[in-house]
Amino acid sequence: MADKLKIIALGGLNEIGKNMTVLEYGKDMIVVDCGLGFPEDDMYGVDLVIPDVTYLVKNQKKLRGFFITHGHEDHIGALPYVLQAVSAPVHATPLTNGLIKLKLEEHDLAAKTQLVTHKPGDVVKAGCFSVEFIHVNHSIADAVAFAIRTPVGTIVMTGDFKIDPTAEDGMTDLGRLGALGKEGVYALLMDSTNVERQGYTPSESIVAEGLDRHFNGCKNRIIVTTFASNMHRIQAVLAVAHRHGRKVAVTGRSMENILKVAIDLGYLNIPDGTLVDINQIKTLPKDRIVIVSTGSQGENMSALYRMAFSGHKQVEIQPGDKVIISASAIPGNEKAVSRIINELYRKGAEVIYDKLEGLHVSGHACCEELKIIHALTKPRYFIPVHGEQRHLQKHAALAKQMGMRPKNVIISDLGKVIECTGKTCKLGQTVPTGKILVDGTGVGDVGSVVLRDRKHLAQDGMIVVCVNLSSEDGSILSGPDIITRGFVYAKENEDLMEALRMIAARSIEVCQMRNISDWATIKSTIKNDIGQYLFKNAKRNPMILPIIMEI
Amino acid sequence: MADKLKIIALGGLNEIGKNMTVLEYGKDMIVVDCGLGFPEDDMYGVDLVIPDVTYLVKNQKKLRGFFITHGHEDHIGALPYVLQAVSAPVHATPLTNGLIKLKLEEHDLAAKTQLVTHKPGDVVKAGCFSVEFIHVNHSIADAVAFAIRTPVGTIVMTGDFKIDPTAEDGMTDLGRLGALGKEGVYALLMDSTNVERQGYTPSESIVAEGLDRHFNGCKNRIIVTTFASNMHRIQAVLAVAHRHGRKVAVTGRSMENILKVAIDLGYLNIPDGTLVDINQIKTLPKDRIVIVSTGSQGENMSALYRMAFSGHKQVEIQPGDKVIISASAIPGNEKAVSRIINELYRKGAEVIYDKLEGLHVSGHACCEELKIIHALTKPRYFIPVHGEQRHLQKHAALAKQMGMRPKNVIISDLGKVIECTGKTCKLGQTVPTGKILVDGTGVGDVGSVVLRDRKHLAQDGMIVVCVNLSSEDGSILSGPDIITRGFVYAKENEDLMEALRMIAARSIEVCQMRNISDWATIKSTIKNDIGQYLFKNAKRNPMILPIIMEI
Repeated sequence: MADKLKIIALGGLNEIGKNMTVLEYGKDMIVVDCGLGFPEDDMYGVDLVIPDVTYLVKNQKKLRGFFITHGHEDHIGALPYVLQAVSAPVHATPLTNGLIKLKLEEHDLAAKTQLVTHKPGDVVKAGCFSVEFIHVNHSIADAVAFAIRTPVGTIVMTGDFKIDPTAEDGMTDLGRLGALGKEGVYALLMDSTNVERQGYTPSESIVAEGLDRHFNGCKNRIIVTTFASNMHRIQAVLAVAHRHGRKVAVTGRSMENILKVAIDLGYLNIPDGTLVDINQIKTLPKDRIVIVSTGSQGENMSALYRMAFSGHKQVEIQPGDKVIISASAIPGNEKAVSRIINELYRKGAEVIYDKLEGLHVSGHACCEELKIIHALTKPRYFIPVHGEQRHLQKHAALAKQMGMRPKNVIISDLGKVIECTGKTCKLGQTVPTGKILVDGTGVGDVGSVVLRDRKHLAQDGMIVVCVNLSSEDGSILSGPDIITRGFVYAKENEDLMEALRMIAARSIEVCQMRNISDWATIKSTIKNDIGQYLFKNAKRNPMILPIIMEI
Repeated sequence: MADKLKIIALGGLNEIGKNMTVLEYGKDMIVVDCGLGFPEDDMYGVDLVIPDVTYLVKNQKKLRGFFITHGHEDHIGALPYVLQAVSAPVHATPLTNGLIKLKLEEHDLAAKTQLVTHKPGDVVKAGCFSVEFIHVNHSIADAVAFAIRTPVGTIVMTGDFKIDPTAEDGMTDLGRLGALGKEGVYALLMDSTNVERQGYTPSESIVAEGLDRHFNGCKNRIIVTTFASNMHRIQAVLAVAHRHGRKVAVTGRSMENILKVAIDLGYLNIPDGTLVDINQIKTLPKDRIVIVSTGSQGENMSALYRMAFSGHKQVEIQPGDKVIISASAIPGNEKAVSRIINELYRKGAEVIYDKLEGLHVSGHACCEELKIIHALTKPRYFIPVHGEQRHLQKHAALAKQMGMRPKNVIISDLGKVIECTGKTCKLGQTVPTGKILVDGTGVGDVGSVVLRDRKHLAQDGMIVVCVNLSSEDGSILSGPDIITRGFVYAKENEDLMEALRMIAARSIEVCQMRNISDWATIKSTIKNDIGQYLFKNAKRNPMILPIIMEI
């Protein structure tokens, strides 16, 4: 019996971010993208989330390479962690590899990793697979889709994309996708992010027009905040600034780092003398200044945040400053963005953030663009990816509208194996997968127990009850002492502290009278007695931590 | 010298919610609205936020009454707390008082409080003030604006409102507002919530049309979730259900409670036999059922949440169920709503939530409606209220567009006194104000120190270091013991626990060698040594709590 092609998402299905898809056939395996996700609201203290790659570790021998569609965090961010667990060459376009290198250097992995750079049109052999790079438009330069030849047929994976007919670097290569469609596409895996939006995503070029309108006649400083990785956007700011005789200074660590990579690789066309150091702006008149800044998502301590809240070394917001927010808030960040906007207004700035101003466009394809790709590639099977359940189902419905038979549209889930043969394509078994939480330098040492405790501590704080007991008769030698954190302000609640001390002492005495000497029982008695008292009297439920010491 | 009229916002300025405005003249004071706010993301464990009413307590003798515009939480929710600190009659319309009574009963305050019921057109004397009730449209029935005659002139306060020409209960009384404008309005305080939206808010009547479209031909169960207090919406569901031969069952505590009040007061017209108990729906065919549910904001453990996650006693989502979300997510709730939508899809439900479906309209006036009120009332002074700084400034700009002189437009802040005389109206001193945090039954005992600790605990958990020292020479009698919560899973990290134990022991020995015997210094040495070790090795910063016991 011939081998089956297995398509397995280790990330990016039923979630936004953490994109990672495995293709496996016989003795060969490749991985497309290796992204991180951002923690959910209830993942207290977690910095980022990466895919569980147990399955890759188990199949290290088969692993022929990573293929990366573009340089956004949700497609490259897990590489520094995953490349510590498995090893394989990483294939990507020049800018994408530039950004990957930046990340690997931070983790001292650059020297150990083989980064292989390709251009759209290149075809890379990797075991029984051959991977073709196809130019697409996205909110970062150098993004590609992949057409992957496999023994069962051609798999097209769009990565994140949109169709921008007036893009600076040329439109998504629809011609190539159409040619593939004519040859025959076995399965299409397509970005579902914007499937809930009708029509088309507007062209990046309208942002340049919007910026021009706002620069026109402005006598004050202009501050533009956007995503650091959106080179086309930053290019537009540079061009508009130059046209209006303004110098551009950049602030914010990620912006500075990424800009350096983009300049080194020739991805930015900077008019002579336009770019100046942020320290130089004090010497320039207000109508000669543009500051490009991080902070478009309201991030704490980002450059824009510091400018607004008077914590930035070189720039403080002044009345009249025009702040252009050339981005929209990612779901979950709305309140943080709003907090900065309010503070900018309070400082007297003019803030431009209205969606109607045309100062931002999405990087993802809307319904009509998705339909074009369906119509061009005419896949035998369709697998919606990059989305939550709502997006996957809406994208499946769209494919059916396009004439696909329901049984040829497959909604998968994380770890589910899609088994493809020449005859059928269907869901099979499940491989181990999941979320690995990264906190500081700790990878995976924060799990569900730790998170549950953090949540408990966050909600009601904690009470430590500390007591010295005699090893002879279990009587109290010293204490019980009560220490609280995050519960109530102890200095203003001495009566309550005394009441808790008395309850704990009584709990111990009761145990002693009943000849209970095992610590576990004494501890749980203290915990229950104090817990009940607090719930009854204050409707609160702090973590209670009895500590018994013995001499 | 004549007295000044003082207008003081104790809530609702530079924030959404917690609305409360004081009007004071000579020996008289009235309060308009008494609302609660919802906690910010960093207010860990806080249930709700109420205004600091120190100023009212100090002026209890002057206090002539509370006047409430409508029955939403952000206008009535602080009453049960504030009425424990001060006492005065509460004036409101029938439904508003019905909802207030419900709240007061939960706090055993109903018997002690004088609730006085009025209808639009009524004028209530309160000291030197007389307060006229004026009908307005909002997303709850029985909402009013106030025209308040004061010794310096008439103050118009719109409360939350919109202008709905096809409202069931009649349009906002523009005629009366116009008449007041002709008499002369001294100051206008107007809702700024939707000032960032152009045009008009659509009529509530389009929702009934949208519902009808979705009921039409549907062969499955229909579940509608909306705000419990939106009686017009629930009335529309009842009417459409009746027309399509469906019975309606209600689920969710707040929905059931509010519905009972609305029915008792005659605010709902329920076709005979349409309303059934939720336990009855199992006996009905699918195309004869409508379930009206709480949970439109994705609230944990709301009825819709429980139906989606299989925790509801009577209803579990089945494939084919049509779930209509007749609400939009309040900023900050987007992710919670999305989580429920995804789960509903996963269970096979059809979920209708698209903004384009016309299944929800806002309760607040957009720009064109705001302009109408400006044009009708022609106030001498304009004070934008109910909004964050961005909204207040945009509303101020709109007033200037309407021809007002900049110095007659006043953006105030919480606690700021607006001093009004016959000649001028300007910002004066500040009275004490702020946020009082409610956690369980505790009012105000969670302050900045407690919140800071909760945040710290949430981020990185905590480490308790417990040791018995000899009172003679400071040597270790037992311990140090290390107990952690929310840090790492101790059982899987025994090496780390042992390392921390050794560091603590070493810290104590070093102190002993240096003849340091005061506990504060020993504790801070332990804290610093462990803290440095963890930051260096794990980039983490848990709370470290050294406890020294002495025999």
